[in-house]
Amino acid sequence: MMYLLFRSFLFRNKFELRSANSTNPNKQNLSIRSKMKRDLVEDLSGQIGKTVNLKGRITNTRKLGSITFGQLFDYTGSVQIVWEKEVGVKPGEVVELTGMVKEDKRSKTGVEVSGEKVKIVSKLVETPPVDLTKSKFEPQLSTLLDHRTTTLRHPKIQAIFKLYDLLLEGYEKVMREEGFTEIKTPKIMETASEGGANFFKLEYFDREAYLAQSPQLYKQIMVGVFERVFEIGSAFRAEPHFTTRHVNEYTSLDAEMGFIDSFRDVTAMLNKVVKKVFTHIEENGQEYLNLYNIKLGKIPDKIPHLKLAEVREITKKEYKYEIPETTDIDPEGERLACRYAKEKFGSDFLFITHYPWKDKPFYTMPSKENTEETEGYDLLYKGVEIVTGSQRIHDYKMLIDNMKKKNVKPNGLEFYLNTFKYAMPPHGGWGWGSERTIQLILGLKSVKEASLFPRDVKRLKP
Amino acid sequence: MMYLLFRSFLFRNKFELRSANSTNPNKQNLSIRSKMKRDLVEDLSGQIGKTVNLKGRITNTRKLGSITFGQLFDYTGSVQIVWEKEVGVKPGEVVELTGMVKEDKRSKTGVEVSGEKVKIVSKLVETPPVDLTKSKFEPQLSTLLDHRTTTLRHPKIQAIFKLYDLLLEGYEKVMREEGFTEIKTPKIMETASEGGANFFKLEYFDREAYLAQSPQLYKQIMVGVFERVFEIGSAFRAEPHFTTRHVNEYTSLDAEMGFIDSFRDVTAMLNKVVKKVFTHIEENGQEYLNLYNIKLGKIPDKIPHLKLAEVREITKKEYKYEIPETTDIDPEGERLACRYAKEKFGSDFLFITHYPWKDKPFYTMPSKENTEETEGYDLLYKGVEIVTGSQRIHDYKMLIDNMKKKNVKPNGLEFYLNTFKYAMPPHGGWGWGSERTIQLILGLKSVKEASLFPRDVKRLKP
Repeated sequence: MMYLLFRSFLFRNKFELRSANSTNPNKQNLSIRSKMKRDLVEDLSGQIGKTVNLKGRITNTRKLGSITFGQLFDYTGSVQIVWEKEVGVKPGEVVELTGMVKEDKRSKTGVEVSGEKVKIVSKLVETPPVDLTKSKFEPQLSTLLDHRTTTLRHPKIQAIFKLYDLLLEGYEKVMREEGFTEIKTPKIMETASEGGANFFKLEYFDREAYLAQSPQLYKQIMVGVFERVFEIGSAFRAEPHFTTRHVNEYTSLDAEMGFIDSFRDVTAMLNKVVKKVFTHIEENGQEYLNLYNIKLGKIPDKIPHLKLAEVREITKKEYKYEIPETTDIDPEGERLACRYAKEKFGSDFLFITHYPWKDKPFYTMPSKENTEETEGYDLLYKGVEIVTGSQRIHDYKMLIDNMKKKNVKPNGLEFYLNTFKYAMPPHGGWGWGSERTIQLILGLKSVKEASLFPRDVKRLKP
Repeated sequence: MMYLLFRSFLFRNKFELRSANSTNPNKQNLSIRSKMKRDLVEDLSGQIGKTVNLKGRITNTRKLGSITFGQLFDYTGSVQIVWEKEVGVKPGEVVELTGMVKEDKRSKTGVEVSGEKVKIVSKLVETPPVDLTKSKFEPQLSTLLDHRTTTLRHPKIQAIFKLYDLLLEGYEKVMREEGFTEIKTPKIMETASEGGANFFKLEYFDREAYLAQSPQLYKQIMVGVFERVFEIGSAFRAEPHFTTRHVNEYTSLDAEMGFIDSFRDVTAMLNKVVKKVFTHIEENGQEYLNLYNIKLGKIPDKIPHLKLAEVREITKKEYKYEIPETTDIDPEGERLACRYAKEKFGSDFLFITHYPWKDKPFYTMPSKENTEETEGYDLLYKGVEIVTGSQRIHDYKMLIDNMKKKNVKPNGLEFYLNTFKYAMPPHGGWGWGSERTIQLILGLKSVKEASLFPRDVKRLKP
């Protein structure tokens, strides 16, 4: 054993030792191609009394007399290392170490490691531009983003993207449970005619093209193929705004489903999906939510629905606020609508429905009762819209008529329109902003904090 | 019951009937907001003798005397409907129907439905441009793609994208099992300096930007954050080629992992992931594979590795083919290398390793034994490269030196380079072409057949 330990430190970049607890060691493991048996932090609680080999980043160090404490982080967790000596490892450096696992009831994992040998695999070339060693970490937004590749390493920032990972996992899982097929549709489009402005323009060989704002047209086409589809993909909006809730590139959680009786079937499905996804996040992300002192509130089985016209009345009557006539609803209106939903129904979520026909894209189903309204809805969460959706027009003639009324030219949309010639079921769906959802869950000031490398009008890097 | 049946046909777009087998019917279900209980094809085998309500597309019809046979497709499967009358439904139309479930041992599902009432929810406006009613379906590539929104509805084409869905699901699942965190990185970049040519250029407000060819720089940065990360995202290559294996926009399955001893740790992980993902596809996609008479062969636990220099020798010696000196390896070389792997090792897969330093991007780790070679590898499957990867340089000074040697300017890459100042573990990863994998599994002539809406030099729609 001592020979092996010694040998393992003779060779730089070689660390062939097998840990004391490894079973069935065989000759092959000492050959040139073999690897050190690496122990993982998550397994340590079952290895008390054993010598282990850990690899990871030392995120923190502290000295107490002749004792050095260090926190080691690997992809499975974090554990305290205690050396009864000086070790010369700086916080942020990457190491391989051996040590003995000891019980430590005060620690979260129930163990600590009594450090023996340690090798610095990767040193700091410079001191990092931000201090990552304090649990409190509240840099200015510009600092947070300018030094993004470093600030992402702080546990509080890591937590944001661990929760983001859970949001993605939850969506992937839940959508399949509900019978949706995952699709990937193109982000480069020939025409900027999806129904909005603010497209990014592209040089596509000898002509122009545009970046997709959403998979709208394609996911509708795919309802004709699989009936229920979902997509997780990039969406690009050339909006020249600086706000706390917009980025110019984001990841949209899309869905589209056939054979609905009304948009209420879509909001019911979305309700179910959101509830299951949030439950997934809560069940698996408690340690990350705890860093922000967040408890995800109960999501109703039936999230309240209010018509936009009702919301306008309510904000006026209840909160003396008139939503400007120049907009369907403004951020203050959304905030107050959610306040009402919270006070009246105890819900952090609210569906606002029946958005005006003049404000919605050409594919949105007009309401039968009032053709100045549509079967379009938004889902609001904690005061902000996180999902937009609607029932779509599935009848070819109605679609053509609606485009005429809206003065949308069919040029370049023939492929989309043809789909409706060959029979489409009634359908609807949604586009759900993933970054904004994480922003609101954690109460982050800007949506940019929930995007790994956000893009805005001025920011194209990192 | 008869009253309800009758009532349900009185109201267009309303179909409030509950099926005979529905349990606990209550008043609410007949209110305006209530919906018809919809039965799904996948549940019919448990409903023999019951009256059911189905919604879906009639994909096929056939008459035999006074009897009409129709095939109904919903998102859970397909079932035969038998009407003892004329029903006037054309193949391709979208219907709601009631009928009695009967045992039918000859059918795949074990049942058929004795059709009663049928309502056409959405009619054909025109006859579709391609006939989707025959099981044989082999249109020219141009027809297949020009009429994509229709041809996607054929079961053989649907099967491609059901398998694609399984590839995505498998990757999402397996990567998490292996401890990887899912990330989403930006596709709009400030500089086209990732290490390749052929970037698409973009107007980004008042300046230029570029579409990412891969998440390379970002996923490496994220190794410094989570150690193991994966991404499923759009990748854009402005390659002006027309080949059967290139598209200009594709979905890349990326991964990056830290604390490797050599690139062999990466190929070992990739081996494991590919094997698990293919197993997932095989276990869940048999009915789709059957349409193409495909059996996924056994994937070795240890896919053979050959150095590129060895491959050059082998093709010359075994097959009298000299890979041109102007390229690292050409398609014929790849084909023959795979032929050798199949003949010699019985493997459809082959790792080719140690690609030349001059052909690999600046971040690729040079080999210690021979600095004209790198720790870069490709994974080939059935004669074609499906994955490219390598160990990356993790040492700041080595990275700067390598960039100088390759004449890559650091301008615009500072954010990436800084990451290496603050300690990075040895790491490596891969980019895996999703569409090409499905193409090769099914033996499709062109990769475009495995992309829902492919983009090439001339094709920007549908």
